[in-house]
Parts: sequence; C-alpha cells; structure tokens
Amino acid sequence: MFRTAELGRKVSKSDFKAREPELREQLLELQQKLRESGRFPVVLLFAGVDGAGKGETVNLLNEWMDPRWLRTRAFGHPSDEERERPPFWRFWRELPGKGRIGLFLSSWYSEPVLKRVYGETDETEFDRQLERITLFENALVEDNALILKFWMHLSRDAQKKRLKSLEKDPLLKWRVTKQDWEHWKKYDDFLSAAERTIMRTSTGQAPWQIVEGYDPHYRSLTVGEIVRDEIAKRLEEMDVRDRMAAKLEEARSAPLAVIGETAEQTEAQSPVTILSSLDMEQKLARADYRIELKKQQGRLNLLQREARAKGISTVLVFEGPDAAGKGGSIRRITAALDARQYQVIPIAAPTDEERAHHYLWRFWRHLSRAGRVSIFDRSWYGRVLVERVEGFASEPTWRRAYAEINDFEQQLVEHGIVLVKFWVHITKEEQLARFQAREQTPHKRWKLTEEDWRNREKWDDYALAVNDMVERTSTARAPWVLVEGNDKPYARVKVLTEVCNAVERALGKSGKKG
Amino acid sequence: MFRTAELGRKVSKSDFKAREPELREQLLELQQKLRESGRFPVVLLFAGVDGAGKGETVNLLNEWMDPRWLRTRAFGHPSDEERERPPFWRFWRELPGKGRIGLFLSSWYSEPVLKRVYGETDETEFDRQLERITLFENALVEDNALILKFWMHLSRDAQKKRLKSLEKDPLLKWRVTKQDWEHWKKYDDFLSAAERTIMRTSTGQAPWQIVEGYDPHYRSLTVGEIVRDEIAKRLEEMDVRDRMAAKLEEARSAPLAVIGETAEQTEAQSPVTILSSLDMEQKLARADYRIELKKQQGRLNLLQREARAKGISTVLVFEGPDAAGKGGSIRRITAALDARQYQVIPIAAPTDEERAHHYLWRFWRHLSRAGRVSIFDRSWYGRVLVERVEGFASEPTWRRAYAEINDFEQQLVEHGIVLVKFWVHITKEEQLARFQAREQTPHKRWKLTEEDWRNREKWDDYALAVNDMVERTSTARAPWVLVEGNDKPYARVKVLTEVCNAVERALGKSGKKG
Repeated sequence: MFRTAELGRKVSKSDFKAREPELREQLLELQQKLRESGRFPVVLLFAGVDGAGKGETVNLLNEWMDPRWLRTRAFGHPSDEERERPPFWRFWRELPGKGRIGLFLSSWYSEPVLKRVYGETDETEFDRQLERITLFENALVEDNALILKFWMHLSRDAQKKRLKSLEKDPLLKWRVTKQDWEHWKKYDDFLSAAERTIMRTSTGQAPWQIVEGYDPHYRSLTVGEIVRDEIAKRLEEMDVRDRMAAKLEEARSAPLAVIGETAEQTEAQSPVTILSSLDMEQKLARADYRIELKKQQGRLNLLQREARAKGISTVLVFEGPDAAGKGGSIRRITAALDARQYQVIPIAAPTDEERAHHYLWRFWRHLSRAGRVSIFDRSWYGRVLVERVEGFASEPTWRRAYAEINDFEQQLVEHGIVLVKFWVHITKEEQLARFQAREQTPHKRWKLTEEDWRNREKWDDYALAVNDMVERTSTARAPWVLVEGNDKPYARVKVLTEVCNAVERALGKSGKKG
Repeated sequence: MFRTAELGRKVSKSDFKAREPELREQLLELQQKLRESGRFPVVLLFAGVDGAGKGETVNLLNEWMDPRWLRTRAFGHPSDEERERPPFWRFWRELPGKGRIGLFLSSWYSEPVLKRVYGETDETEFDRQLERITLFENALVEDNALILKFWMHLSRDAQKKRLKSLEKDPLLKWRVTKQDWEHWKKYDDFLSAAERTIMRTSTGQAPWQIVEGYDPHYRSLTVGEIVRDEIAKRLEEMDVRDRMAAKLEEARSAPLAVIGETAEQTEAQSPVTILSSLDMEQKLARADYRIELKKQQGRLNLLQREARAKGISTVLVFEGPDAAGKGGSIRRITAALDARQYQVIPIAAPTDEERAHHYLWRFWRHLSRAGRVSIFDRSWYGRVLVERVEGFASEPTWRRAYAEINDFEQQLVEHGIVLVKFWVHITKEEQLARFQAREQTPHKRWKLTEEDWRNREKWDDYALAVNDMVERTSTARAPWVLVEGNDKPYARVKVLTEVCNAVERALGKSGKKG
C-alpha cells in the first residue's frame, strides 16, 4: 500500500518557488468562496509516520490561508469533562461549521491505531473502532462535509534518517521525543495497523490520500493542491446540485395532485400502524394513582442518588402528538429529583450556530456530565417525524437518519448511559377534546397554536412516520416505550415506572416489572 | 443583621395550601411572559446556612415553574477545563440567556465565604473577592439581568435542631454530611463572613433577601412571592422603558441637524488626540525588515514553547481602521507559531446565542485553555469604538463599558494571562491609497465594502473614541500599544517585538526593548 509513497519524489526549490504563489492565491480565493457560500464545512485530517511533516504541513496551510477562518485542533489526553461523555463528544464539539475549515492533528484515528500497535486492543475491537469512525465520517459527509484525510508517509529508513537529522539540529532537536523513537521501534506494527485503517476507512466520499513525506516541497505542494482541487470541485458540485434542485422544485408542482389523492385515500381508512395496536382504554383510578405516583417517585429518587454516586447518566426522550401530556410526565419525573441533577432540554428551532452544523450536533452539545439526568422534550427524532411529514427534510435525508440516530444512541449506551425513549400517545378524539379544553381555559390558551391544528390534519402521516421510527430505532438497549396517554394518571405512572426499571437495570439490579 | 430572621415565622399547612395554587399559576404565567419578551435573564441565587432549605426551595421552584426554561446549577470543584481559565469563566458559561431563569446553588459566593471561614484568606483578600463579585453582578444588572439573592437563615440552635431531626429520619439522613457538622461548629465565623458578604454585595440592583429558613411553608412562599413580584415589576419596567425609548426616538429627529453641524466643524479641523502624537513617518528598510522579522519570529517561537510548557496563555487584541494591516500583522505572528497552539478569533456580528447574553459573554466563551495564544481580530472594544460612533450603543452603555472591560481584563491578567492590545494606526491619506489599491486588484476587491467607505467618513469620531479608549483602558498590566502602521514592515516588526517582550516578562525574564 505504501510502496508508491517511498519513491523519493522531490520538488526542487526553484520549482517550488515558481508554483507556490499561484497555489496560495488560489487557496485564499477558494477559502473566501467557501466562506461566502456557507454551504459545507471542510475537515482536513493529518495522520502518518512521525517526522513525515504532519505538523509542518498544517503550519504551512495556516500560513497560506486566512487563519481567521481556520481552526487547528490536536487531541491529547481527554479532559475530565470529555471523559464523562461518550468518546466522540470531544470530536463533535470541535467540528468546523459550514463555510469553515478545520485541521485535525492526532484526530479520532490516533487512539485506535496506537492502542492496536501496543496490543491494547485485539483485531476485532480495532475493526469495531474503525467502523465507528466510518459511521461518524459518513454522517458528516452525508451532510455535505468535505473530508480529506492525509496519510503522511516515510519508509522505516527514511524515518530513522529524518529523526536523526532533526536531532542534530540544535534548533529542531526538541521536536524529537522519546516517544518518537519508541514508535519507530514499532514501525512494522504501526504500518500494519495503518494499512488496515486506510483499507477500512477509505470510503468513496472520505478517501485517504497517501503522501510521501520525505521532501518538504513535494509534500506541501501535493497536500495544497489536493485541498485546492477538492474544495473547488465540491463548490462546483454544490452549484450544480442547487440548479438541479431548483429544476426539481419546478417539476414538482404537477405530482402534488397524486400525493393529494393518496391523502384522500388514507382519509377514508386510517393506516394500520403499531399505534393502532395500543389499548388506549387503559386507566388508573385516582386513588391508585396517588399511591403509585408517590411510590415510583420515591423509588426514582433513591435510584438516581445511587446512579449519581456511580456516575451513571440517564437520557430520557419524549415524543408524541401535541397535547399528549409529555410536559406533565416530565414534571412528575423532575419532581422526584434534586434540581442539581437534571436538566430539561426543550427542542425547538435550532439557533444559527446549530444550523451551521450537522443536525446531531445540537444534541451532542447538550449531553451532560456523569451522573446527571437529561430530559429531551422532543429530540433528534424530529428529523424522521416533523421534518419528514412536513417535507423539511428530503426522503434520502430522513431515511439515512435512522442509521445516524442508531449510531448516536449506540454511543450513548456504550458509554454506560441509560437511554429510554417515550412515545406518549393519545387518540385523535382525545386530542380534539384537549385542544378544545385549552381554548376554553384563559391561562392555557397560549399553549395552543395554529400549528397544532395544522399538525392534526396530518395525523395519519405522523402515524406512519411513528411506525417506521419505532421499527427502525427500537433496540434492546435503547428501546421505545409506547405510552397509552388518554388517561393521564396511567401514562405518568407508566413513564415513571419505566424510568425506574431502566435505571435499576443499569445499577445491576434485577429490573422489576412495574 | 439576621435577628429578624430568627423570629420563628411560620405559615400553617392550611394557609400554605390556600395560597400555593395561585402563586404557582402566577409564576407560570410570568415565566411565559418573560420567555416571550426575551428581554432579560433572571438569576436566582441561593446561599445561607446548611439545613435552611436552599436545595428544597430550588427543587420546589423547579416543580412550580416550567422546568424546560429553568436551569439549575451548583458549582463543586472546578473541572480541569475550568481551572485553566480565570475563575469566573465557569460562571459566565452557565449564565441563562434572555428570557430564561437560572437557579444557582453554591454559586460565586461559596468559595470566598468558605475560605474566609476557614482562615484561608484574610479580610483584605476577602473584600477584594467580594468586590470582584459586585463588579460581575453589576455588569449583568446593567445589561438588564434581574438578580435575586436569597440568604436562607437559621439560628445556631435552629440549625442544630434541624440537622439532628434530619439525621433521625432514615429517609433524610443522607442529607446530613460530616461537612455540615463541621460548618456548624464554625457557625459564628460563618455568620460573620456572611454578614460582611451581605453588607458589601447588597446593591440597589442586586440586593440580598434574608429569608428565615426554619419553616418550609414560610420560606417557600416568601421566596416564591419575591420571585413573582420582582419578575412582574421588571417586566413592567421594561415596557415603560420601551415606550420612553420610542418617544425619545421621535424627539430625536430634530437634533440630528446639530450633530451634522458639529461634523462639519470637525471637518475643518481634526481633533487633537493621542493618535495625532504618533510619528507616522517611521519606516523600516526592506533589508532590515527581513532580518528583524526572522529574528523576532524565531524569538517568539522559542518564547511560546516555554510559555506553553508553563501553561502561560497569551491574549492579543487587534484594533485599528480598515486596511490598517491588522491581518498582515496577525499572519506574521501565527507564521512563527505551531498551529496547534493558537487560534485567531475574528469578531463580526454576534450569533443569536451570543445576542441573548451580556456582550462580554462571547469573548469569555472564546478564552482558550492553558498555554495557548488567542488572537482577537477586533474585540470587546467594538462597544467603545464602532458601537459608540455608529450609535448602536447608547452613551450610558458605552460609557460603562470601560469599567466592564477593565474588570474583564483584570481577571485575565490576574489569572496569569499575557494580554497585549494593539491599535494599528494609519493616516487618512494612507487609508485612501490602500482603498484605491484594493479597488484595482481583482482578488483584493472583496476586501473593500461600502461600509469601509462609510466608516471613513467618521474618521474624526473614531479618533476621539480611540483617544478615550486608550485613556481609560490602558493599564500597566494590560497596555495599549499604538502602532504606526503607514509602513507595513515597521508595524509588523513592532507588533512582533512587543508580543515577545510581553511574553518574556511573563516568563520572568527581563523584558528587552526590541
């Protein structure tokens, strides 16, 4: 794999001097265009053999381009705030926004590769980590991120020569550390891990570029030119896509009639979905409710104190039709907890900073430190619910969201986070009754908006979307709990009981049936 | 001071039950209004004697109000990411945005008070810390934040009784820790520190409310009613202010002519400012430039490596007229540094999240971890420059900004951060020449906007603003360096040299004159 990167390619100083000014100008211009378009982020990733010029290349790119719109990051040991979240949290928080360029040294590849080289992980675990990386990068790429990965290469001998020559120079000596020589001794292991990494994570959309690192002129020009060409290409692609999208939009005016027809059809007969199978008549008598509520709240309080002490976090997701009683259920949970230990995160329209990132970014940023309870009032499922039904997300976009969501949730669960997702359901008739009641109560009227009525018209579309969502994202460790919500007391006790059961299981106790 | 809070005030259970529902409803309604107005944040702070019900009150408020728009925070030991920034960074990052309510337990008062009680600080140091708090709260209050501080009180005997009774209850026993009893033994010291705290930090705008904490019903209603009344009052005040502002705006149409007149006057004769005293003829020959540049860049590289190892951060601020060469100077600095160790932060329009906070919030959030160089391309001085000149900030607003900025910078400096502020200056003629050159160079034309021409018309206003700014914010440890920028080589070398000198001084070496 690396043989072609050991050919001793060089660029003479005079050649470099001749080509550099034009390249710099082009890079600056493209950076400017990228920023103006604000259409996608660029992620440049540098890995490879020590001494092959990763750091120097990054420094040079910072010199060539406008440093105000570049962001360079290197990841050392995670901070305590980082350790308390799933491992990829630290990478998500440093991702560049649309229109910006992020340069990453010792990125998400470093730890997996080093651990493999030093035998701390076996091949299966290593592959699993590479798979995780691929999912991560794919999610970014699908959101139009341009990811360029450079493997800066040196042969074993060339590396030795390079380290020795650095050590001889009194001004550069500091660059060579003990660790570099230790790594060098592991050269063959390192290369075999690298080969596997590149094989497994070189995707069509985020390929690795192997760059011979011996000659600074050669490697700088090579990297610079690839960056230039790829940004230019992507900018052009985005233009083409925009034009095509505009045409598609035009062409769409006709087929709408067909969609209307289907809608009429479903009007006549509601679709059979998982929601149809719920026994919406379930009830809890007032007296039983009072007793059960207190009991489960007491149980939750004790369990959460234990979870806090053990650093086990809980993430609860609430989705459901308007007026289903999500807020009421949430308040019955928070009432049982110490206010220091939980946060409720209401998901409404994204802020402009959030809009400049991948849609999962705003959920990643809200993950709390160890031992806390995070309650999402609406969530990342918006993409496959409201965004799907209202057409805010295109079909390919919401379809791939299932996989992205599963991957995201798997990371939470693998980090030891307790994750429970509630669909609080009510019947269409019950919703109408609640809307009408809200209209008649002055201090509740603000809760009811035009949008609520509009959403109601798409009841069946939502039912189908919920059906698909549960089918595709209910996993053993991140289950959906469907809550029959027509009777509020019943729903609240069910939610509380399920939360308790889940925390109890995580604490290693037998999860009792509530 | 606390005697009136030891009267044994009580509210009977029946009375509480009668008053609670209405209070809850009013709080919910006000919370809703606050959120809709989005005009100011509410900061509720709870301190006081252990066992006086701080935590319980906060939990109750979370139950009474809509938890989605509340945020409760308690500060324990700072994380490593927090320790690497000035102490108040952690408080700034948790402040609620406009329209939200933040509840703080063990807030910015905890550490100063406890350290004083345990004799770790003397009275002078304690007073200094309280002064810092007052400045912090004042800055928020001036930005319309509503700050309510509750001191929950118990007499010595009442506290003992309370702790004992908690210990007897098997369900509440866990609440009493060894620390609580240790604090209790220090009751008198604690109270004297508290008294001083309240005396020194009870300002007209952010007063302390002393609440007798023995009876849960009494204290809950008292706190709830104060919160209700103060939010209602502030909402009303904001309405009145808005109406007055609208009237003022109307009345303003006339005086504009007078301002025009003044502008004409100054046209004839430019004001004498600190900028007039600069020798703008200073130059550096091309050959000397090359040598000096390399020399200072090499020096900076070595110094920064040492600073990095010692965890000393550097913050550089660049201000100056359009086309003064700020960007060029910044690039000469970054070229000398490892891209991992610096970030350039271009300050343009705030994002909507930033707009929802105090104007200093967006600079606090950019402070980097220990050992890094942060370069601000334009900065917090925008308030006393462009915002003042363009009238975006009212006169009282920009006037008080000097003190806020000085306080902010003092915190950086006290944390050991090297702070240097550059005003890169050019003459009006030189600016014209550079604008014209930009117009004639195709790939530089984008750098020149309509706004640049408009700013130019207000040259003298800016000169006055700069004069005031330097006068009020140039301190020994956070000096302004005025850079004669007509000759780019001279300016760049001067900037580099000053940065080196400052870092060198911080490293405890004698700051050489460059």
